[in-house]
Amino acid sequence: MKVVLIEGDGIGPEVTAAACRVVRAAGVDIDWVRADAGLGAAERYGEPLPEQTLDLIKHHRVALKGPCTTPVGKGFRSINVRLRQGLDLYASLRPVRTLPGIKTPFEAVDLIVVRENTEGLYAGLEHQVVPGVVESLRVITRTAADRIVRFAFEQARHSDRHLVTFCHKADVMRLSDGLFLECARAVADEYPFIRFDEKPIDNVCMELALDPTKFDVLVMENLFGDVISDLCAGLVGGLGVVPGANLGTRYAVFEAVHGSAPDIAGKGLANPIAVVRSAAMLLDHVGERAAAARVERAVARTLEAKVGLTRDLGGDGNTASITDQLVKNLGS
Amino acid sequence: MKVVLIEGDGIGPEVTAAACRVVRAAGVDIDWVRADAGLGAAERYGEPLPEQTLDLIKHHRVALKGPCTTPVGKGFRSINVRLRQGLDLYASLRPVRTLPGIKTPFEAVDLIVVRENTEGLYAGLEHQVVPGVVESLRVITRTAADRIVRFAFEQARHSDRHLVTFCHKADVMRLSDGLFLECARAVADEYPFIRFDEKPIDNVCMELALDPTKFDVLVMENLFGDVISDLCAGLVGGLGVVPGANLGTRYAVFEAVHGSAPDIAGKGLANPIAVVRSAAMLLDHVGERAAAARVERAVARTLEAKVGLTRDLGGDGNTASITDQLVKNLGS
Ligand SMILES: CC(C)[C@H](C(=O)O)[C@@H](O)C(=O)O
Ligand SMILES: CC(C)[C@H](C(=O)O)[C@@H](O)C(=O)O
Repeated sequence: MKVVLIEGDGIGPEVTAAACRVVRAAGVDIDWVRADAGLGAAERYGEPLPEQTLDLIKHHRVALKGPCTTPVGKGFRSINVRLRQGLDLYASLRPVRTLPGIKTPFEAVDLIVVRENTEGLYAGLEHQVVPGVVESLRVITRTAADRIVRFAFEQARHSDRHLVTFCHKADVMRLSDGLFLECARAVADEYPFIRFDEKPIDNVCMELALDPTKFDVLVMENLFGDVISDLCAGLVGGLGVVPGANLGTRYAVFEAVHGSAPDIAGKGLANPIAVVRSAAMLLDHVGERAAAARVERAVARTLEAKVGLTRDLGGDGNTASITDQLVKNLGS
Repeated sequence: MKVVLIEGDGIGPEVTAAACRVVRAAGVDIDWVRADAGLGAAERYGEPLPEQTLDLIKHHRVALKGPCTTPVGKGFRSINVRLRQGLDLYASLRPVRTLPGIKTPFEAVDLIVVRENTEGLYAGLEHQVVPGVVESLRVITRTAADRIVRFAFEQARHSDRHLVTFCHKADVMRLSDGLFLECARAVADEYPFIRFDEKPIDNVCMELALDPTKFDVLVMENLFGDVISDLCAGLVGGLGVVPGANLGTRYAVFEAVHGSAPDIAGKGLANPIAVVRSAAMLLDHVGERAAAARVERAVARTLEAKVGLTRDLGGDGNTASITDQLVKNLGS
């Protein structure tokens, strides 16, 4: 099986290499097709997201991606945003679970954040009305609202989850979130066997801080999802340990959502857990569910045993030592 | 001294009465001028925020407000939003501190959230482009950006705080948050004795979940502020215990930001802490700083002693018993 690999910037090559090693050790033979994006690509091709990278993903359908940095101040739009919009990866999927060995305020967090990934304020439509007055457009469409809520309910159905919470700010944005809410209710109606709840985004943030364990599937528009995803990541240990997927009808890009950590790049110190877990999601996606489960189990065992962990995880190991442990803990 | 009192809906009359009692016991003689807003006002005058209420605040300059519910489905815009915009209460101020006796994941949280209170997506400008496609306008102006950041730095200066963190999403909204960021940096430049930091809003949310104690003053646009305020409230026990203020050049409205809790309204069970603390902010604002400090101290002592607390605070008391304790703990 061929899968596109975007190593990305900074620690990207190190952590994606670790993920490839773990996938191989889990018994899945993937032929990785390298594609370029990020600062390196900008230097080499004058373009941080070269057309051939998009083409490779279109051809092979599935990609694993390390952190890619968008050059600043040169007029480039975010690589992540362009990938999502260019490939119509309309759903961002972020499972958030308490991990063994990682001390956090809450035990037993187990939720999924489903974020609309293509529109809202990410439409990128802005203009200056007069100097000193700018408008950004928040675009909400029935089509996108309908399909993301449907996606959330399908996720719930396929993963034994029984509550979908739609997050909105319809009391302030009556038209746009009014439309989204109307779509959400209509879809919810088709799933009488799954509980549906609708809550203002500010309430959801407060409730997540008070007790995240009561949530199950959360679904919302793009920018709300950006905020909620990272907040939820923070509740279980941060971006270094949570995986991410961007899914569309045709294509799927799995990515660690942390940054490229230029300060430790190339030193072999980076924590590969986030991209390893993203690779596990990828395995699940391509039908290698047993291998995916083995990788997830290996991550849990490794974190629990606290052997060979990288510094950000409280250990004194490095990328190689934690990857050794992951491989060892795959079992057989 | 005359101060406008908006009792509000649901538990509003009970909790504002408690606040008035505490203020009086703290030795400040306020002549409360009652004004109407909320569901009751909508019934009585066909208008949830009657013109005479705005006029009274304009006349007396300062108000204390309980929770006001905006009637839904009748085309009324949010009372809170209209109050803020109508009186140009451009700054929302939410001090967030760990309280004694309230179990939370983090100790020693002590930060201030400063939220731009008049524009952004709250401008209320929306339209349907074609059926199923809606745009909401996020308006950012140099004038509003400049004054809110300036407000945040002034807050820092006057409250012995040394770090102002500006939260934005300038990598996605390059024009609107680009403008805001530019203003923030320019203002920061005038305050070399206060540290300035700028961070994407998603990062801030994650970092707040991981460790809120490292923040000091947070400043941001309207909707980001809505989300961050409530998230921070969640970190110290929820909306039942945090105060709020809406401040402009001319007027000031202090309010509990929790809801009207219709389920327990009229039963004498409501927790008045949030509005009592909002009243303490009001006292501070009108130059009664010693009395304000006494009220805050009484709140701390009452929560710590765990006597007479309402049910939401883990006690078996009611509004009367907790207010008795507050009065008792004012000391002399
Ligand atoms: C890099 C940035 C544009 C991106 C986003 O806001 O979507 C990131 O925060 C994410 O969540 O993947
Ligand atoms: C009621 C609602 C419109 C309001 C807001 O979003 O500002 C509330 O959440 C608040 O924070 O005071």
